[in-house]
Amino acid sequence: MVLASALQWIIPIAGLTAVIFAGYLARDVLRRDTGTQAMRDVASTIHEGAVAFIRRQYTTIAILALAGAVVIGGVIYLVETRDVADVPDLAGAPIAIMTAVAFLVGAAASMASGIIGMFISVKSNVRTAAAARRSLVEAVQVAMRGGAVSGFLVVSLSLLGVWGIFTAYSTFVGGVTVREAPFLIVGFGFGASFVALFAQLGGGIYTKAADVGSDLVGKVEAGIPEDDPRNAGVIADLVGDNVGDCAGRGADLFESTAAENIGAMILGVGAFLIAQAAGWPNPEAWIFFPLVVRGFGLLATIVSVAFFIRGSETENPMNILNRGYWVTSILSVVGLFITTNVMMNTGGVVGANGWPAWVWFFGAGLVGLATSVVFVYITQYYTAGSFRPVREIAEASKTGPATNIISGTAVGFETTFVTAVSIGVALLASHWLGSQAGLTNAEGHDVGGILGTAVATMGMLMTTAYILAMDTFGPITDNAGGIAEFSRSEAGARQITDHLDAVGNTTKALTKGYAVASASLAAFLLFSAYIDKVNLIQRNRGGQLLTAVNLADVGVFVAALIGAMLVYFFSSLAIRAVGKTAQAIIVEVRRQFREMPGIMDYTQRPDYARVVDITTRAALREMVAPGLVAVATPIVVGLVLGYQAVAGLLMVGTIAGVLLATVLNNGGGAWDNAKKYIEAGNLKDENGNVIGKGTPAHAAAVVGDTVGDPFKDTAGPSLHVLVKLLATITLVMAPLFIR
Amino acid sequence: MVLASALQWIIPIAGLTAVIFAGYLARDVLRRDTGTQAMRDVASTIHEGAVAFIRRQYTTIAILALAGAVVIGGVIYLVETRDVADVPDLAGAPIAIMTAVAFLVGAAASMASGIIGMFISVKSNVRTAAAARRSLVEAVQVAMRGGAVSGFLVVSLSLLGVWGIFTAYSTFVGGVTVREAPFLIVGFGFGASFVALFAQLGGGIYTKAADVGSDLVGKVEAGIPEDDPRNAGVIADLVGDNVGDCAGRGADLFESTAAENIGAMILGVGAFLIAQAAGWPNPEAWIFFPLVVRGFGLLATIVSVAFFIRGSETENPMNILNRGYWVTSILSVVGLFITTNVMMNTGGVVGANGWPAWVWFFGAGLVGLATSVVFVYITQYYTAGSFRPVREIAEASKTGPATNIISGTAVGFETTFVTAVSIGVALLASHWLGSQAGLTNAEGHDVGGILGTAVATMGMLMTTAYILAMDTFGPITDNAGGIAEFSRSEAGARQITDHLDAVGNTTKALTKGYAVASASLAAFLLFSAYIDKVNLIQRNRGGQLLTAVNLADVGVFVAALIGAMLVYFFSSLAIRAVGKTAQAIIVEVRRQFREMPGIMDYTQRPDYARVVDITTRAALREMVAPGLVAVATPIVVGLVLGYQAVAGLLMVGTIAGVLLATVLNNGGGAWDNAKKYIEAGNLKDENGNVIGKGTPAHAAAVVGDTVGDPFKDTAGPSLHVLVKLLATITLVMAPLFIR
Repeated sequence: MVLASALQWIIPIAGLTAVIFAGYLARDVLRRDTGTQAMRDVASTIHEGAVAFIRRQYTTIAILALAGAVVIGGVIYLVETRDVADVPDLAGAPIAIMTAVAFLVGAAASMASGIIGMFISVKSNVRTAAAARRSLVEAVQVAMRGGAVSGFLVVSLSLLGVWGIFTAYSTFVGGVTVREAPFLIVGFGFGASFVALFAQLGGGIYTKAADVGSDLVGKVEAGIPEDDPRNAGVIADLVGDNVGDCAGRGADLFESTAAENIGAMILGVGAFLIAQAAGWPNPEAWIFFPLVVRGFGLLATIVSVAFFIRGSETENPMNILNRGYWVTSILSVVGLFITTNVMMNTGGVVGANGWPAWVWFFGAGLVGLATSVVFVYITQYYTAGSFRPVREIAEASKTGPATNIISGTAVGFETTFVTAVSIGVALLASHWLGSQAGLTNAEGHDVGGILGTAVATMGMLMTTAYILAMDTFGPITDNAGGIAEFSRSEAGARQITDHLDAVGNTTKALTKGYAVASASLAAFLLFSAYIDKVNLIQRNRGGQLLTAVNLADVGVFVAALIGAMLVYFFSSLAIRAVGKTAQAIIVEVRRQFREMPGIMDYTQRPDYARVVDITTRAALREMVAPGLVAVATPIVVGLVLGYQAVAGLLMVGTIAGVLLATVLNNGGGAWDNAKKYIEAGNLKDENGNVIGKGTPAHAAAVVGDTVGDPFKDTAGPSLHVLVKLLATITLVMAPLFIR
Repeated sequence: MVLASALQWIIPIAGLTAVIFAGYLARDVLRRDTGTQAMRDVASTIHEGAVAFIRRQYTTIAILALAGAVVIGGVIYLVETRDVADVPDLAGAPIAIMTAVAFLVGAAASMASGIIGMFISVKSNVRTAAAARRSLVEAVQVAMRGGAVSGFLVVSLSLLGVWGIFTAYSTFVGGVTVREAPFLIVGFGFGASFVALFAQLGGGIYTKAADVGSDLVGKVEAGIPEDDPRNAGVIADLVGDNVGDCAGRGADLFESTAAENIGAMILGVGAFLIAQAAGWPNPEAWIFFPLVVRGFGLLATIVSVAFFIRGSETENPMNILNRGYWVTSILSVVGLFITTNVMMNTGGVVGANGWPAWVWFFGAGLVGLATSVVFVYITQYYTAGSFRPVREIAEASKTGPATNIISGTAVGFETTFVTAVSIGVALLASHWLGSQAGLTNAEGHDVGGILGTAVATMGMLMTTAYILAMDTFGPITDNAGGIAEFSRSEAGARQITDHLDAVGNTTKALTKGYAVASASLAAFLLFSAYIDKVNLIQRNRGGQLLTAVNLADVGVFVAALIGAMLVYFFSSLAIRAVGKTAQAIIVEVRRQFREMPGIMDYTQRPDYARVVDITTRAALREMVAPGLVAVATPIVVGLVLGYQAVAGLLMVGTIAGVLLATVLNNGGGAWDNAKKYIEAGNLKDENGNVIGKGTPAHAAAVVGDTVGDPFKDTAGPSLHVLVKLLATITLVMAPLFIR
């Protein structure tokens, strides 16, 4: 089929188009009005702080990544020369070099998209604040376009990276065919995960330490409002929004797209072999399928961002964003239809009911798209103020902080129910749909079921660029609000930025729900890729095939226990890191209040830069321990207990990680909004009087909000990264665990 | 071997001796001085409240259990007549009746031991308070003997129940041999779990709702001290200590001992078959082994309680209790040695190194005993005031309740590390030791490894009666303190009761650590029993054997996800139940303060009974939902996804449950002791001044303590019960899940 072959070109075309479109958006944003001198001053201070942090953070990460590449290359070289090589035609050195290079390219692409996205984001905030002085819709456009730069770069660089390295290896390296290439590029995913882990940890620690620390000294001790310029920690707080929410989440979703693309390509190999043996036209389309779907997703997002982010001044901005999301989703369905129809050609062989295979897979993809919509609504229910969970927490605040915390914990725990059930249904449904397609391999096993879950994952991830743009909208508007407050902007403008800030809180929460759901769907796909890789190695070595990950085996069970423990221990380290860093900020801001008495009456300017510097150093120091624990645990368990056991660690660690992340993200979001619910005057006493700001109930809700901060913005998002790191690290290190 | 046969008589002898000894202790306690009239008045009020709650609670539970027995009998009848019967000689009805009868006997024995233990416990409190007016050692003796009544009854009734029903079925029912009997008595374990679930939930909700509710209105709103007689909720609080900590934990450990005895006997069948085939002497000794070990454990505890609970007036009471624990442990080693040496006779066949099999199993048993000691120390480290974790939480309280909560959460999460690693090492070590014993079955598979983990579990559980006595010591001394405070006892006596109360807090924490560790070790044993039972059924039906619980199967994976979710959802319901019940108490106590103005100046007596009544009704209503969720989830998953998937739910649910229970128990304990650390004047500011009671830091620590209450005394302990319920319910319902 010429068409299927031609459709593969959608990958570089969509990728490059997205990069160019991101450039256009960046230029558009940068050309806009930057407001008053006061606004520019604050913005440039934030910019400086963010650049300083990112420079130091990415320098550290780059050094760690280089060291990682050397270790990985060395280990793989030793393993592959000790034993039969995984790809027989390539001796030890080429495989080691290809893996290490893929790792570095993945790391570099992730860093590049993070840095550029961050740069545009800190330029967009002041422009959003300036636009808010004129028009709501214009402010939404600026913030959304600034966010879309991140979204497009993350998805397109990940897509181009995977495609580029795959094409390079399968075309230019002798002995590598499309069949083996997916296994050789797993290093790309690991590199992306490695960068994401430290980016999210460092950024997450920075943002919440600055937030908690400056709130505690400012609001609680000194009694001045949030974002007040007299608080020396306030700039660090604004910088934190960018480095945590923006750069961190970007790296998180970069690795998601990369790892899941590669995992799906590995599973596609199974279908490729069937297609090749049966003489179906264009068998490699089964391997390229995930990338083509991703390309269509990018095109859908471009159309949506270019033409559908518009509305009236009186409209709820959330509606404007939601409209864009629906447009993206609907266009994605069209893209999914075209791709499955054209690329999943079984040469006339049909599945159950006499329907062609592609129909079943199209159904599986729809399940994925539907799952992402379901998660958007679940997250809204649990974290938005108008529903039962948030109201319950607000009511519990009447009897003090203890009942607020107890109630929020109960809500956080409760959210696992609908999350697990939705994921379970999506997995079972997509697996069943795929298994109806009639793809049976040479050993008589069905490969369609697992491919169905892969297609569902790809369907879900088609909207990633849009979701990420909405996510980055969050810190941009949060910053815009801070700048407006800081530069004492007009009341009308501040009203607009406050409104956008509230919308941004919702979009940030949605992204986390989306990230969790995609991580869970993808988990199953990545396990299967691990098993495929182990069996590829075992076939070459003549070893025993891995046909089951048997929990009743004592080694697997213990590894599973360790995996579930890891997510708690890692979260403990991340949360403690926030506490320690916040402590350092508190000490410094207190010192400035004490030694610079002019701060309180505005005659002296606090030393913002010093707080930024202290936070930067502390956050970078504190990110190392949890990062190393995450990387070392699967390797140690794999070496001690073997390759089957490490699969148990991976699977149960993923289950535990996804659920704990759900608890932390949603619990934190609900606490945050319970506070906002009270501030908005929605809480009443038994006589109908409003219990608002400044009451003990409000103080109790502030405690819950503060507790939720490191949960939802440090530990929770870092857990998303952790579960995918477990998948990529075991994929890359698999040869090491087989003795 | 005549000796091995004779040693089986240790089971009824030790069981009956323990019952008689419990009777002696009860008589001894009841004969003692009951103090002043004021003390007797309070005590009888507590007694009334406790009896009223227990009567209503156990009536509800009895009705639920009867309904449960009918359902179980009916379902098993249908399954066994639909298909080939599990035990071919017994048609559907006998199996159904035997299972339902075993269920009812288990439920009844659990209820009996709970009720009698509770009755003695509420009689011991006032006698401990009276003894405290004369002597520290006498007070320790009274409290420990009162506690030991529970300890001995729980363990001996469980032992006699399992032995009795086993003997009855294997002797008097035609067609049942010792080989099948262990499978037919699993209903006993399920009955015990069923009662334990509701006993722990109801008691846990009652105790913490009363505690939190009366503290919030009393200490926080009205500004009167804890246990102050003007607080209408104070009697409910004292009642709660008995029904939650005493009756609840008793039921918890009753089911542990029952389920683990039965599970170990099922695994013993594997060894029995080998012994029988090889013609080794006395093959059924392998099945009776767990019960004999338990019998020796009881005898060791009797000696220890009778002769070693003594010391000097100036000694730390914890030392007195610890001495008794060490004596019990050392005597247990002797008992373990005798039992393994006599009963594990391989007729001269040796294992690895040329050592006889019993040597290896003796080693595995020692691993179990050592694990229980390790857990005692882990729990002390994480929850006692002198170590880093509690100090860290106390320090964090300086910056308010939010940092206190964040820090306590980090500590709770952290405790999973050493817990998981210890359990992992114990499992791997005991499995390895067992696998060296050289027991290979007819299919060439090793059965020694899994038997090693069973022996380790039995070794760990030898000290259960002693641990339970120490646990019940907790609520007795807590109550004694309350009675002393309430009846305005002499300062010297109050000092002693305060000291004992602090020791009781530690012993309660230790018991929870012990319960978690034994649940985890036992988990693996119970999974294996489940697999054995499924395969027994499949052999009869000619179905496919369950050789692996394959996590890479989509159904197993989804079930595992549901299992991990269940522990969060169940905890959420339990925590929320506490909140709702506490709310009811708060409303009532507030009403009394408002409508009975004489309460505050002691001229009017609050209506304690009304609060007790309200709490009773609310707690019983609220225990139903989480209980039904726990029972229904495994059944629904088993029916929908099948018998392999439900094993995944069981295993991953257990891992998740054990870890979450660890987090909740230890986090709660650490918060509690951080508050005590501050109250004891150990927290200092940077200039070395004490930050004590009444400071904002202390208020922050009180918030943490209150948050920890439902975690450590409701949700955490209920999770222990949940994981064992999952094991027994799947064991009993296995025939239903196989299609």
